Amino acid sequence: MTADPAWFADRARLEDGNWLFATYVFETEREPREAAADLCREQSTAQWARPGVTEDFRPRHGAKVVALRTLRSSPAPLHPSPFDGPGPFATAEVVVALPAGNFGANFGMLLTTLLGEGTFFTPGIATIRLTDLQVPDAYANRFPGPQFGVEGLRASFGVKARPFLFGVVKPNVGLDPASFAALAEAAWRGGLDACKDDEQLADAVWSPLAERARLCGEARRRAEAETGEKKIYVSNITDEIARLRPHHDAALAGGANTLMLNALPLGLPAARYVREWARVPLLAHFDMVASVSRAPGFGVESAVLTLLQRMAGFDIILFPGLGARMRSTEAEVRANIEACRRPLGTLRAALPVPGGSSVPGDLAGIRALV
Amino acid sequence: MTADPAWFADRARLEDGNWLFATYVFETEREPREAAADLCREQSTAQWARPGVTEDFRPRHGAKVVALRTLRSSPAPLHPSPFDGPGPFATAEVVVALPAGNFGANFGMLLTTLLGEGTFFTPGIATIRLTDLQVPDAYANRFPGPQFGVEGLRASFGVKARPFLFGVVKPNVGLDPASFAALAEAAWRGGLDACKDDEQLADAVWSPLAERARLCGEARRRAEAETGEKKIYVSNITDEIARLRPHHDAALAGGANTLMLNALPLGLPAARYVREWARVPLLAHFDMVASVSRAPGFGVESAVLTLLQRMAGFDIILFPGLGARMRSTEAEVRANIEACRRPLGTLRAALPVPGGSSVPGDLAGIRALV
Repeated sequence: MTADPAWFADRARLEDGNWLFATYVFETEREPREAAADLCREQSTAQWARPGVTEDFRPRHGAKVVALRTLRSSPAPLHPSPFDGPGPFATAEVVVALPAGNFGANFGMLLTTLLGEGTFFTPGIATIRLTDLQVPDAYANRFPGPQFGVEGLRASFGVKARPFLFGVVKPNVGLDPASFAALAEAAWRGGLDACKDDEQLADAVWSPLAERARLCGEARRRAEAETGEKKIYVSNITDEIARLRPHHDAALAGGANTLMLNALPLGLPAARYVREWARVPLLAHFDMVASVSRAPGFGVESAVLTLLQRMAGFDIILFPGLGARMRSTEAEVRANIEACRRPLGTLRAALPVPGGSSVPGDLAGIRALV
Repeated sequence: MTADPAWFADRARLEDGNWLFATYVFETEREPREAAADLCREQSTAQWARPGVTEDFRPRHGAKVVALRTLRSSPAPLHPSPFDGPGPFATAEVVVALPAGNFGANFGMLLTTLLGEGTFFTPGIATIRLTDLQVPDAYANRFPGPQFGVEGLRASFGVKARPFLFGVVKPNVGLDPASFAALAEAAWRGGLDACKDDEQLADAVWSPLAERARLCGEARRRAEAETGEKKIYVSNITDEIARLRPHHDAALAGGANTLMLNALPLGLPAARYVREWARVPLLAHFDMVASVSRAPGFGVESAVLTLLQRMAGFDIILFPGLGARMRSTEAEVRANIEACRRPLGTLRAALPVPGGSSVPGDLAGIRALV
C-alpha cells in the first residue's frame, strides 16, 4: 500500500495564513509515509469517502504532510506497551499543515486537533510527541496575546535594563495573611521586585485571597516608600469560572498588581477569558505541564504550551528552569524563551521566567540564557 | 537520613471526610520512604520550617503517607532520562492523604495538587503516575456531579433495559449542515439512539452550530415520529468561555437535547461552569486524556480523569475503549466504568461510554464489560 498523495502538499503553497504547521516526532512499525498520512487523516477529515458519493473534503479540510524524514530505526519503541507489534520501529519527524478553518481561533478545538484522539490513536503509531508549532500571523492575530508584554511590564514597574527578580513567599501553605504579608514586605525591602503566591495557594479559608491582598497591598506600599522602587504582588486567583472576576476585583482592590493563573489546570479558554477584562499583567504557572511534557518522546514539548499561553494573553510565563531538579535540558529552556519572544503577528512578547527551585547561585546561569 | 515521621499517618485517623487519598506509583533511586515523604512535602507545605520560628503547619496542612509498598527494583527506570543517576531504581506504590482544606472544592487547585509542579519535580523521583483517587463523600458533595445521571438519562430518553447506542456523524469535517442532518436522520431511523458531532466539529464557518442544530432538530423529530422512539442529538459546544452559553441556547433552540464538551481542552472549571446552567445532559469527550495517560507508568490513569469529569457534572463520559486501536487494556476500561459508577457522596452515576473506532462487531465485548 502506498500513501495517498492527497495527504501531501508543498509547504510553499500553504503559506497563505490559513495553515498552522505542527511538528511531531513519532515511532511506527509502518512505512513512515503511510503512518504520517494517517496521522493527517486522523487530525482532520478522519473518514472522508462515503460510498456512492463523490465529495472529497481533503483539499480544503485535510491536514497535509509538508515534510517528513526518518531519524532512526530501532527494534523496540521508546515506551514499549502491550499493543506494539514485533517491530522494528522507525522514528520519523513530520511537519503537518493543519487548516485553521477546521478549528478556528478557539483553544478547545485547537488543542483537540493538536493533542486529541486523532493524534494519539493513529493506527500503528506507538509513541508521538508534538515538538513545535508554527502559527501564521493571520491566525495569531485572532488571539489577544499579552496585554502589557515585556516592554509594558518594564514601563509599568520601572525595571529597565536588568532582569526582574521574582520570589515566592514560603511557607506556601498554612501562613496566616499577616505573617504572609510581613514576609513579602521583608523580601521587597531586601531587593526582590515581585513576591508571589505559591501555585498551591489561592483563596483559602485560612488565608482568604481578599484579606491577603489587602495586607500585602499595605506592605507593598510601605516597601515602595522605603526603597523608592515599584514592587509587585502577584495574587493567585485560580478558581472556578464564576469566582475569577470577583477575585480579580478583590485582589486589585487590596493591592495586587499582577495576577497568577495555574494555566493548564484552569484551562487555556478560562485564561483567555480573564485576559479579556484583566486590568493588570497575568502570570502563568506551569502546573500540569510536566504531566504532558516530561516523558521523553511522548506528549508535547513544554515550549508549545508556552506559545499557547502567550497567545491566551499571559504577560509572564513560568516554565521549568535549569538544573537537575527541574529535569529540563538547556535546549528545552531555550525553546521556552524563544516561544515567549518569537515574532507572532502583532502579539507582544511575554516575559520568560525559567523557574522552580531556583536559588541565588543559579542567577548567573539563568541570566546567560535569558 | 531517615524519613521524618511527620509525613506519615494512620489512614484510619484521617477518615473524617477532610482528606483525599491519591495513589501514585513512582520510581526512585532513593529509599522509597524518604522519596514518599518528600512527595508529600512537595504536594503540600513544600517548605515548612522558618529559621527561628517554631510554627509547624504539617499536622493540619501536610500531606501524609498512609500506605507504602515497594513493588520491584530495576537497574534502569521505565523512561530513562538524562537526569537519572546510576540506579538501581525502586518502584513503589504510595497512598498519599491530601488535606482538602489546602485546595478546596476547586478543580484548578485540586489538579495543581494532584498533577502539579510538586508531583513531577520531587527530588529523586524519576517517573510517577497517579493511579487512583479516593474522594470522601463530604468533599464529593461540594461538586455538582451529573444533573441527570444514568437513571435520569434512561427516564428522559426512554431507553430502559438495554444499552444506549451512540454514533458519530461522519465525514466529521467538511459536511454542510443539511448533508449532516440527512446522515443523522438515516442513522436514527436505522436504530441509533444518539447521533453526535465529532470532537473535531463544533461551531465552524462551513457548519455553523446553530444551523446544524436546527436541521438536526427537524431531522430528529421526523425520525422520532417514524420510529416512535426518542432520539438524541449531541451538539459539540466546545468554544471560548463567553460563547458557551450562547451555543447552549442556540443548540437547544435548534433541537439538540444533549451537549458535548471536549473536557480537558476546555478545562474542568469551564465544564463545571456549563453544568451550572445547562438544561440538558452533558457528554465529555476524551481528547487530550491520552496525552497524560498513555505513556506507561507516567502521568495519570484515565479513570482518575473520568472521576473528575463526573464530579464536574458530566452525565455521559467517553473514554478509550477496547481493542488494539485504542491501546487500552480491559483493566483500564473497567477502571473507567467503575469511576462512573462508584459511590461518590450524593453524586449520581455517569453513563460510561468506552469509545473510539468501535464497530458493530465490538458490541458484544463492550456489553459484557458494561
